[in-house]
Amino acid sequence: MQKTFVKELPGMIGKEVVLKGWIHRYRPTSRTVFIILQDASGTAQVVSGHTELKGLSLKTEDCIEVIGRVRADDRARQGFEVDLLRVSLLNNASQDLPFVSGSDLTGVGPDVVLDHRPLSLRTYQGGTIFRVQAALVEGFRAALRKRHFTEVFTSKIVAGGTEGGTNLFEIGYFGRSAYLAQSPQFYKEHGVCGLERVFETGHVYRAEPHATARHLAEYYSLDFEMGFIDGPLDVIETEREVLSEMFEDIARRFEGRLDGFDVYTPSLEHAPVWEFGECLDRLKLAHGRMDLDDDLDPEAERQLCALAETDTGVRAVFVHGFPMSKRPFYTMPVGDGSTSAGFDLLFRGVEVTTGGQRLHRREDLEAALKARGMEPGLFAAHLRMYDLGMPPHGGLAIGAERLTCQVLGLQNVRQATMYPRDQNRTTP
Amino acid sequence: MQKTFVKELPGMIGKEVVLKGWIHRYRPTSRTVFIILQDASGTAQVVSGHTELKGLSLKTEDCIEVIGRVRADDRARQGFEVDLLRVSLLNNASQDLPFVSGSDLTGVGPDVVLDHRPLSLRTYQGGTIFRVQAALVEGFRAALRKRHFTEVFTSKIVAGGTEGGTNLFEIGYFGRSAYLAQSPQFYKEHGVCGLERVFETGHVYRAEPHATARHLAEYYSLDFEMGFIDGPLDVIETEREVLSEMFEDIARRFEGRLDGFDVYTPSLEHAPVWEFGECLDRLKLAHGRMDLDDDLDPEAERQLCALAETDTGVRAVFVHGFPMSKRPFYTMPVGDGSTSAGFDLLFRGVEVTTGGQRLHRREDLEAALKARGMEPGLFAAHLRMYDLGMPPHGGLAIGAERLTCQVLGLQNVRQATMYPRDQNRTTP
Repeated sequence: MQKTFVKELPGMIGKEVVLKGWIHRYRPTSRTVFIILQDASGTAQVVSGHTELKGLSLKTEDCIEVIGRVRADDRARQGFEVDLLRVSLLNNASQDLPFVSGSDLTGVGPDVVLDHRPLSLRTYQGGTIFRVQAALVEGFRAALRKRHFTEVFTSKIVAGGTEGGTNLFEIGYFGRSAYLAQSPQFYKEHGVCGLERVFETGHVYRAEPHATARHLAEYYSLDFEMGFIDGPLDVIETEREVLSEMFEDIARRFEGRLDGFDVYTPSLEHAPVWEFGECLDRLKLAHGRMDLDDDLDPEAERQLCALAETDTGVRAVFVHGFPMSKRPFYTMPVGDGSTSAGFDLLFRGVEVTTGGQRLHRREDLEAALKARGMEPGLFAAHLRMYDLGMPPHGGLAIGAERLTCQVLGLQNVRQATMYPRDQNRTTP
Repeated sequence: MQKTFVKELPGMIGKEVVLKGWIHRYRPTSRTVFIILQDASGTAQVVSGHTELKGLSLKTEDCIEVIGRVRADDRARQGFEVDLLRVSLLNNASQDLPFVSGSDLTGVGPDVVLDHRPLSLRTYQGGTIFRVQAALVEGFRAALRKRHFTEVFTSKIVAGGTEGGTNLFEIGYFGRSAYLAQSPQFYKEHGVCGLERVFETGHVYRAEPHATARHLAEYYSLDFEMGFIDGPLDVIETEREVLSEMFEDIARRFEGRLDGFDVYTPSLEHAPVWEFGECLDRLKLAHGRMDLDDDLDPEAERQLCALAETDTGVRAVFVHGFPMSKRPFYTMPVGDGSTSAGFDLLFRGVEVTTGGQRLHRREDLEAALKARGMEPGLFAAHLRMYDLGMPPHGGLAIGAERLTCQVLGLQNVRQATMYPRDQNRTTP
């Protein structure tokens, strides 16, 4: 008999069903035992006599199969219960677990959570974080598909870096050296040259020995790149629409199921676009910040989002026109060349996106490489693509873990990373 | 004025539009010039006088912006044309291209295609292959989401291999060694232990110095894993449904747009499940094959698919019960232990899937490791997860590039890999 998911039970009143899942709660009373059964779709209450469970020594987190009958019951929270007819133990859990699926993860140490990741996924908080993350990634893809973007899958093994070779992980590759890609930047630009609009969702790698709450050596990057733009504002407008749709989707799908999270899923329609210089002026005026020069710092990101909220009601701001010196060589300059057509999106106090318009003429790229002391010859296989009819283009990258944190109000990207990689961790 | 995609033109008759794209064809006649303009959504014919184009020296593959008016025209193939009002050149292509977007790629050498990947994406064949691939991957995800699977994103940097440490790419990781994941196998099993049903689509790595038409050092793996199964047939049934839905989706979305491809998108409802021993018997009987013992070879895969087609009308067969000696340590044995609950799907003559039921008890996994001379202590972080309430489970992996080839009738996985990685290639 086929397994019924607990979510389907309301339509099965009076019927015999096979349920399979974990014991989320096990509560014996004098006459009956109440079992909350958990599966991929939710939880349901199973009611049993003591006789049926005899000799099984069932306990929380054990895997069981229940044959039962669904009974409407107005007293039950879900409006029904399942009367147990037969049960079998499929596999038992250890007697000695550091926490259980009913635990509040807030009280569990972060390393204990990571070392017992599956159990954390069975908790309300852990399960919700990764379900929301999956929905955000899918929302990103869906919003772009609607806009003529094609998904691409490009190599993560590269001969060199997109930014000149620093912070790369080196791979032993058939007796020579290769590297892990820091971003799909070059490949998505190639994609634009062929398909006009492309996106990719995949891991990228930074060999940076950071030990902060917002950095990882491996993270999941939501990238898109679009051709035939007039300027960076086209990219910003697209992100505004795409993120707003993603957030709407989260709000709808998880309605009533995000209790306890400090959720923020605003429309970005009215998020302002501020020039980098204007940001420095605002920070000076509002907070007396005189220490910033060519970049922002985490405090400035928080302050700017708060200022944007005061002005527009949205705790987010697109900062446009970063100094060229702080952006990669392929960035399009504006004006006298000291300013770039590069932007960041600060969302709820944290930078979640870096994007901009890119150079699209081969001669400009070669000049930009030389100006930074890099050898165009090393980029020959890439530069060749600029001979093939490269449209003006731009794009961006969003860190999926960071975005998940900002949407759910989490404090550390490791909470939104199933198996984080940093200087310390390569297991599990 | 916002760019109009050519696909939207039928609804814009009589209106002024801005088009941006590549010159797919440029055909001057005595009085007018016909330009086929190509963008992300398709192609459209633009008609211009000679005067409007004066001094621009436009040619195939140049990037242009056209302001024009859409005119209904019964003589035109699409029922309309665009009368050019103004044009500007956004970027030009090289005079000297090895092929153009109108070329038949069949006549272009494979290395030339890879070295000019963007241009190949602009051809009918190249563009179609990667659009179909994107649709297959999305179809995989969509079919699984409908079935209570959650998408996960797991690390590709691992401390060791899932199959005991051979054929791994080594990474220099903050002064020590780590490896590129050969598969998300362990992590998707952890996922099952937390979320019951998970899938992942992502790159995996094999340091195998193959030089065949079906192997790559990096490929895109479509993985799923499901808990609370009764046996491997549950996994097979799920794959049957998922692939059938994916194929149906391709047939519908690309209807009339796959000319020239030898497409095969059957329902797998009636694809047979044959035991490994039965397969050897059938091969002996039909082809006199006496040389096979504990595994199949490419010829046998072709022969079995042909036999399945004769029997059932479907050129595909699930081969179940491979010898245990040919399957990884975590495979569930059946019967006396020499046979495994592992299966392959042979589709159109090629193995596109490996799957099976896995061991779900810690003591069985430890015994299996020891039996193969592997040290359970090295797998401590993984084995811990089997204490947390691990359900009986199984799953599979499908190679996206190989599947794309088999669906479209391509001869080499490199045709369905944007940037293939093998012993020779790390660029572009």
